[in-house]
Amino acid sequence: MHTLPKGYSLATVKAGFRKEQRDDLALLVSDTPAALAGVFTTNIFKAAPVLVGMETVRTRQNARAVVINSGRANACTGDEGIAKCRATLDMVARATGLQAHDILPMSTGVIGEQLRLDLWANAVPGLARKLGAADLEAFARAIMTTDAFPKFAATELKLGGGTVRLCGAAKGAGMICPDMATMLAVLFCDAAVDARRWREIFRRAADLTFNRVSVDGDTSTNDTLIGLANGASGVAIREDEFPLLEDAVHDLLGKIAYMLVQDGEGATKVLHIRVRGAASPEDAERVARTVGHSPLVKTAMYGRDPNWGRIAAAVGRSGAAFRAENVHIRLCGVQLLKNGQPVGVDVDAVLAGPLEQRDIHIEIELGAGDAEYLFLASDLGHDYISCNADYRS
Amino acid sequence: MHTLPKGYSLATVKAGFRKEQRDDLALLVSDTPAALAGVFTTNIFKAAPVLVGMETVRTRQNARAVVINSGRANACTGDEGIAKCRATLDMVARATGLQAHDILPMSTGVIGEQLRLDLWANAVPGLARKLGAADLEAFARAIMTTDAFPKFAATELKLGGGTVRLCGAAKGAGMICPDMATMLAVLFCDAAVDARRWREIFRRAADLTFNRVSVDGDTSTNDTLIGLANGASGVAIREDEFPLLEDAVHDLLGKIAYMLVQDGEGATKVLHIRVRGAASPEDAERVARTVGHSPLVKTAMYGRDPNWGRIAAAVGRSGAAFRAENVHIRLCGVQLLKNGQPVGVDVDAVLAGPLEQRDIHIEIELGAGDAEYLFLASDLGHDYISCNADYRS
Repeated sequence: MHTLPKGYSLATVKAGFRKEQRDDLALLVSDTPAALAGVFTTNIFKAAPVLVGMETVRTRQNARAVVINSGRANACTGDEGIAKCRATLDMVARATGLQAHDILPMSTGVIGEQLRLDLWANAVPGLARKLGAADLEAFARAIMTTDAFPKFAATELKLGGGTVRLCGAAKGAGMICPDMATMLAVLFCDAAVDARRWREIFRRAADLTFNRVSVDGDTSTNDTLIGLANGASGVAIREDEFPLLEDAVHDLLGKIAYMLVQDGEGATKVLHIRVRGAASPEDAERVARTVGHSPLVKTAMYGRDPNWGRIAAAVGRSGAAFRAENVHIRLCGVQLLKNGQPVGVDVDAVLAGPLEQRDIHIEIELGAGDAEYLFLASDLGHDYISCNADYRS
Repeated sequence: MHTLPKGYSLATVKAGFRKEQRDDLALLVSDTPAALAGVFTTNIFKAAPVLVGMETVRTRQNARAVVINSGRANACTGDEGIAKCRATLDMVARATGLQAHDILPMSTGVIGEQLRLDLWANAVPGLARKLGAADLEAFARAIMTTDAFPKFAATELKLGGGTVRLCGAAKGAGMICPDMATMLAVLFCDAAVDARRWREIFRRAADLTFNRVSVDGDTSTNDTLIGLANGASGVAIREDEFPLLEDAVHDLLGKIAYMLVQDGEGATKVLHIRVRGAASPEDAERVARTVGHSPLVKTAMYGRDPNWGRIAAAVGRSGAAFRAENVHIRLCGVQLLKNGQPVGVDVDAVLAGPLEQRDIHIEIELGAGDAEYLFLASDLGHDYISCNADYRS
């Protein structure tokens, strides 16, 4: 059991939003206002809780709580969806004594169906009463949908003024089938840091972690990542210690992002796609994402099939600028393409063992410049189809 | 059995390129030089036969023959691959009495392995001897890989000067598993048309058909579409009849393109994704392709699941410019989203029947302009995974 950062309480309850009998509503409360950072989906169809949360992040520097429901995404629900989202925040505010504008909402589940406020009204008082009863794992479990395992991590940072604690919990990104591939995450810490600084740190760390993983490339209407820093540790961070805090946030988000890929629906592999030598950062990203989203590459890796030509084909159609004769490709450390020519190794013999590993390293050198990009993607297997074809029915 | 256009002969033979015992090498010969048009993959890693074929189209107006092998793609095979491709053309030239530069090569199969010239040397003389023995269906069967059915079509065009015949044959695009998603197609006709005009007609028809279908979005290293018009009908096409010829080419390519989607690996549906009201043609295409490539949309359609929120989510992340409140979405003719708000129909009741059909119409109105795009895509099912995960092994 992880020690929580100081000044936070967690609660979970079974509200009945889901068919399974398990906790499906979770609450995190900070004793004091916490510096607030938020990263939201870029999808134009933003879910009601995303629109409400974005407004809070835009207009306020601090927050006190995050409430997360499973079962319904409250996306594509129009004006009624916004009103119902606000109604849930009012309920949580009444039960906890907080202000509604101090609470961030997150939802995950089917799109296009309205929240059941009757279920919320029944569940929220008990949720508030149970504050402090849940640990990090219980919290992470309550926000799970079809995640195979709860995703959470914690770390400590020893600074000149004392120890700061950070915790994070998330539910699955991409391919987590019943929930429109929604990724929800909260990172909370007891460092004392002003909101402007906290947002800079958080945004950069999110860009380098959560924004560089993919299961199926479907950006959800609900993706939300919230960061809180409430200062309850009493540790004042010296100017030269901010990079340490940023590293800690980066590491923690990186760990959780890895878990999201590892738990991609039906996934058995984590593909680490590293592109080097691109003419621009955009080109590096383009190549990495094209490879990471290629169904042919993903199914080959699922099948432990050293069919590296699929990697070359994906690189070639990415739209990035390079010359075929300058490209090198390595799979699991084995060079397969050198200056655009096949190396001619016996791939079946050499790669059979390495391809059994969970972590598969794909390295692509374009020979067109200095830009790099690292992207994590899952493989694509039978369970993805089963899960996604049958979800609503 | 279709009547071939005048002046063409077909042959097929079992060269032993594939494990299965069936014809795997095909030849088409025109008695006289035919106006030549070609459309090739945009992948930077172009297969050897693509590079050789592009050079022929660039430097010559006419051609006499097309030779197509299955089993090995001759892609990512470097300089040796180019030399071996040319060697196969020399063999066919010797056996047929043609010039090597009059013959277009096409290959499909595993990437990164060299052609077996010994097998070619054994097979080519018999192939040449059998010219005229194969009909269109046999030709289409010989170029199949894991296609579930041969893809061919024929049509006639009655013009003032007489009748012109057109035939086409193709092997599967995208997701056709053992062949790196390669799409190969030949359209040949006996109209008399100069090469410049023929290329214009062919390019436009290809852009509106083959370039608007997808199974899995993976553009192959080998995709090739060749058009021949040898004039053997003796029918001179009047100036005002060119649009009729273009329509016939368009219809024939459209029919074959539809078959490619229908036969996408593991596919059970053809999704017709029509986008209207986009701010630009690029935006219309972007939306249609994002929806057509979305694994979540494709698996939902495979599962007959009216989970239209996945369509909205794909539209929203496409990168196209529009406002959520102006968007309408229809599935199988049923309006589900109106001005960005859910219509609130009982989707399970209303859509259960329509979703059983093979052709699924998805209509998206963005309310941002006048641009349109129609895109055909397959659904995504279990057989795709089985086929692609296990291909090489």
